[in-house]
Amino acid sequence: MSAAPALLKNDRFLRALLKQPVDRTPVWIMRQAGRYLPEYREVRKQAGDFMTLCSTPELACEVTLQPLRRFDLDAAILFSDILTIPDAMGLGLYFEEGEGPKFKSPVQSAAEIAKLAAPDPHDSLGYVMDAVSLIRSELNGSVPLIGFSGSPWTLATYMVEGGSSKTFSKIKALLFEDSKATHQLLSVLADSVASYLNAQIAAGAQAVMIFDSWGGALSTPHYKEYSLAYMQMIVDQLAREKDGEKIPVIVFTKGGGLWLEDIAATGCDAVGLDWTIDLSAARERIGDKVALQGNMDPAVMGTSPEVIKTEVARILKSYGNGTGHVFNLGHGITPNINPENVEALVNAVHDESAQYHN
Amino acid sequence: MSAAPALLKNDRFLRALLKQPVDRTPVWIMRQAGRYLPEYREVRKQAGDFMTLCSTPELACEVTLQPLRRFDLDAAILFSDILTIPDAMGLGLYFEEGEGPKFKSPVQSAAEIAKLAAPDPHDSLGYVMDAVSLIRSELNGSVPLIGFSGSPWTLATYMVEGGSSKTFSKIKALLFEDSKATHQLLSVLADSVASYLNAQIAAGAQAVMIFDSWGGALSTPHYKEYSLAYMQMIVDQLAREKDGEKIPVIVFTKGGGLWLEDIAATGCDAVGLDWTIDLSAARERIGDKVALQGNMDPAVMGTSPEVIKTEVARILKSYGNGTGHVFNLGHGITPNINPENVEALVNAVHDESAQYHN
Repeated sequence: MSAAPALLKNDRFLRALLKQPVDRTPVWIMRQAGRYLPEYREVRKQAGDFMTLCSTPELACEVTLQPLRRFDLDAAILFSDILTIPDAMGLGLYFEEGEGPKFKSPVQSAAEIAKLAAPDPHDSLGYVMDAVSLIRSELNGSVPLIGFSGSPWTLATYMVEGGSSKTFSKIKALLFEDSKATHQLLSVLADSVASYLNAQIAAGAQAVMIFDSWGGALSTPHYKEYSLAYMQMIVDQLAREKDGEKIPVIVFTKGGGLWLEDIAATGCDAVGLDWTIDLSAARERIGDKVALQGNMDPAVMGTSPEVIKTEVARILKSYGNGTGHVFNLGHGITPNINPENVEALVNAVHDESAQYHN
Repeated sequence: MSAAPALLKNDRFLRALLKQPVDRTPVWIMRQAGRYLPEYREVRKQAGDFMTLCSTPELACEVTLQPLRRFDLDAAILFSDILTIPDAMGLGLYFEEGEGPKFKSPVQSAAEIAKLAAPDPHDSLGYVMDAVSLIRSELNGSVPLIGFSGSPWTLATYMVEGGSSKTFSKIKALLFEDSKATHQLLSVLADSVASYLNAQIAAGAQAVMIFDSWGGALSTPHYKEYSLAYMQMIVDQLAREKDGEKIPVIVFTKGGGLWLEDIAATGCDAVGLDWTIDLSAARERIGDKVALQGNMDPAVMGTSPEVIKTEVARILKSYGNGTGHVFNLGHGITPNINPENVEALVNAVHDESAQYHN
């Protein structure tokens, strides 16, 4: 195992992912750069539309850094959208006020799928790499930067449904009726995600995370065949070291509590957990093979600093002694949260966790 | 163990729940009386609003029987809404076109909760008992009739949120900030559900099912404390026998795959399963202690008879040999389904399952 990154002022996050000793449990928050921050809403307003915010490196950098100026977070995460890849494939990502993401040209037939090609991450996705380089430079070694992508299955759901869905009826109809076309779609997406994440690593991302938001909507055999297998392909293709430093990989399937052993077996460094499973049960099932990231219910953030502190203590205790735990929510923070509660969370994790790292 | 119900022409459903030998795997479909049937939409239109349909025994009886006239289903299920209890408590249930259920007077404080009382099932819920009696009489021993209720936790989510929710922020804030008031709410609901289901049994329901639609939104300790414990209380209070016949109880938590052993341990006769878990894995985990009900992905119903047949065969094989399986979807059938696909499903279950019952 390589040594911990020498140039970082705070390397707790990377050390915990690599199961090296830490002084405190590291913490970051999914969607930490987001609408709950007034300074984010200000930049978002200036940018006009959401994609301008994502595709302007200076703006993406600015909002990435905002939560770090307020809170003692142990990692930064690239500000971007999970749907940049299908957008770069020409599907025309857009956002309508108060609604989820949508595509102007969803793909709904084998013929349309056959036309898709993996985008060159340095061409149509160059703005993401520019943002990564700029953020790395601005972070100046304070905390590590996380790169990320949606999982192939999750990207495919949006591409076929044309946006968000509750029932996934279109992508599932495709899966059940044309397994071959579905595999072709997932295959081009896996190639795309692998080269996209490798480009982020080359540009400076020090860890990467694959977000499988909708793998939990599948049956067990379909999860393995249509979601996990493609995340496995990506993990296999990722550059796992750069300049002598390990690049840890986190795989997170929301609602994936039934399949933790399988996720851990992909060769990732950490498994992301939503709040439905106990960390103690997850640790027992997976063993000490990989690190665990999670898993507070985001609804707790809407309560009070006292309740947050109690929940933090419960979750830290549930993981127990030793390294290998990165504290996070079990899903993204919602827009209605008081930033003071985020401060309470971050401080509680650091204060309460020292006892587990002797 | 009592003998199988002697007066039923088709007792497969009850026999499978009681783990007695059957010739074919029984099948029914959650929301089988519903919008996918043109004859249902016709009655619904005549009734005017949805609550009139639920609260008029002749109309509720008519739509309950409609799917049985078309398909070779092995059980009927009372047509009603899961929110009849909070409506009878005075919360004012209503439905707006194209939206989920809503309450005119949600309960959002300890003071409002303290005022709630368990409704007398023969008074404000008498229309449900009248419908049960009428349906039993009309069924005339053809197939058994299932009664049902929402679980206390599921009812509480609607009562506190005032309707459907994606994040359950209000009920979870109550749970985290005022555990005592939350327990008081769940306690009055558990008493209400127990007496409501017992009244349905007295009126003629031959099996009952508790629908815990939203237990899966909770963390493991909260699921046990705020959802499962109250279903346990209900199971403990139910009349489990009537006129010498066993009355089986099915407990279904959508998204409850992590907690199957705990659900089985409530003393229920069967555990309902959504489609995320394999029947083989569920049977291995639970053992042969209880029956299993499920678990085809409802999205399959939007495909073709051939795909449906393939999936039915896969699911039957996954359960394997012997009794103890009631075939169903893993969640309610959606409104956009072609009734011919339902016929294909029901026939496939009967045709393909004979081989597992020698």
